[in-house]
Amino acid sequence: MTKNTKVNAAILIVGNEILSGRTQDTNTSTIALWLSSLGVNVVEVRVIPDVEKTIIETVNHLRKSHDYVFTTGGIGPTHDDITALSISKAFDLNYEIHKKAFKILEAYYKPGEFNEGRQKMVWMPKDANLILNPTSGAPGFSVENVFCLPGVPSILKSMLGGLKNEIVGGEPILSHTISLRTVESEIAESLSNVQNDNLDVEIGSYPFFQAGKLGVSIVIRSEKKSKIDKCTIKILEFVDEKKIQVVDR
Amino acid sequence: MTKNTKVNAAILIVGNEILSGRTQDTNTSTIALWLSSLGVNVVEVRVIPDVEKTIIETVNHLRKSHDYVFTTGGIGPTHDDITALSISKAFDLNYEIHKKAFKILEAYYKPGEFNEGRQKMVWMPKDANLILNPTSGAPGFSVENVFCLPGVPSILKSMLGGLKNEIVGGEPILSHTISLRTVESEIAESLSNVQNDNLDVEIGSYPFFQAGKLGVSIVIRSEKKSKIDKCTIKILEFVDEKKIQVVDR
Repeated sequence: MTKNTKVNAAILIVGNEILSGRTQDTNTSTIALWLSSLGVNVVEVRVIPDVEKTIIETVNHLRKSHDYVFTTGGIGPTHDDITALSISKAFDLNYEIHKKAFKILEAYYKPGEFNEGRQKMVWMPKDANLILNPTSGAPGFSVENVFCLPGVPSILKSMLGGLKNEIVGGEPILSHTISLRTVESEIAESLSNVQNDNLDVEIGSYPFFQAGKLGVSIVIRSEKKSKIDKCTIKILEFVDEKKIQVVDR
Repeated sequence: MTKNTKVNAAILIVGNEILSGRTQDTNTSTIALWLSSLGVNVVEVRVIPDVEKTIIETVNHLRKSHDYVFTTGGIGPTHDDITALSISKAFDLNYEIHKKAFKILEAYYKPGEFNEGRQKMVWMPKDANLILNPTSGAPGFSVENVFCLPGVPSILKSMLGGLKNEIVGGEPILSHTISLRTVESEIAESLSNVQNDNLDVEIGSYPFFQAGKLGVSIVIRSEKKSKIDKCTIKILEFVDEKKIQVVDR
């Protein structure tokens, strides 16, 4: 594994509604799959409450220890939306009206609709870069390596496309999945041998239940297709020997 | 808010499959809702890779800063299941065969089926307390305030019931949701006033899209029903004044 070509990211989910269990987070998976296609590995996710001190401390830790940080949530118009203010404080920047964001929202809303609540959404860290929002107008923003996106999954998804050119990844991480009709303990030893012979490849084993039947998905991840192919062949060899049914490969 | 009656927890998800985006985590929501009913507030969630050093450091941080820590994932039979070993190291305990777990699995499997792969699942930190598994035999375990559960959601769910008496919570956290046919910016100022008059109540505002229509859910959380009722009345007052349609209350 050539460490210096690896690009990594952390995701920071700001949201009491995720911590309470009321809302199921789906943004992690959306962002991680998208970053993976750009050659960026998500190596840590944190979910924290809507508390200014916690947001500031966590952002300041993550932005120093990772190449990129993506935050979701807390950039709407209500009192519990404190991400923009907290990021301003984390970077020691003024929290102020962003003129370009103001113009975007002024044009987006009908005359008279750009009220005080909505104007809160153009308060940002001074000189933040905007992340355009094709769904609902209000932009996200970035400061240095920290990218702040909204919490609503459909809006977040629509904003990633515009960010693509801002992210410089390493080699895209390729993955291949082999699904077997077996249980983990039947293949544990053989799979462990393949992993030990290929330490620069990430091999994961995940049991599943599908239509009342047990199965195991083996996921092989690497930047090199040749390495994935090599492990795939080795795995299919022992699968064949053990007469295990292959569901998908 | 009487801080000393609050009981909090962190959830630690060990899993490359969540970080890659391949698998959507649902265990956070399951554990958080269950803990909430026991009066335990989840205040932090972390997702980390299957890396021994990272697991040890994160567990040692979280177990000192929270009343309870729940880990999910990494306790199966394959090479990438390293949670039990890592927890042993975090607590400086021997990693060894747990006799009671061995007997449980020996009785659970048919003669000859309790192979080497499956035997890995009875290796645990010395003298760990078992968490029984009514679904698939292999127990989870706890050491002090750290509870280690499997990653497969259906198995995890079936194990929580047996843990209930182990968890000592504070006052159960009650919550009430009011769903409105409006947008956040229409209610931001009024809602902020209610929050400012009731700083010991957690009021969250969450936009939603349903059947092509915009709406906002207001979630009010507190240990005291009377406080929730007071905020509910205040919110419904301004909703009525603004002639906003109430979808659900």
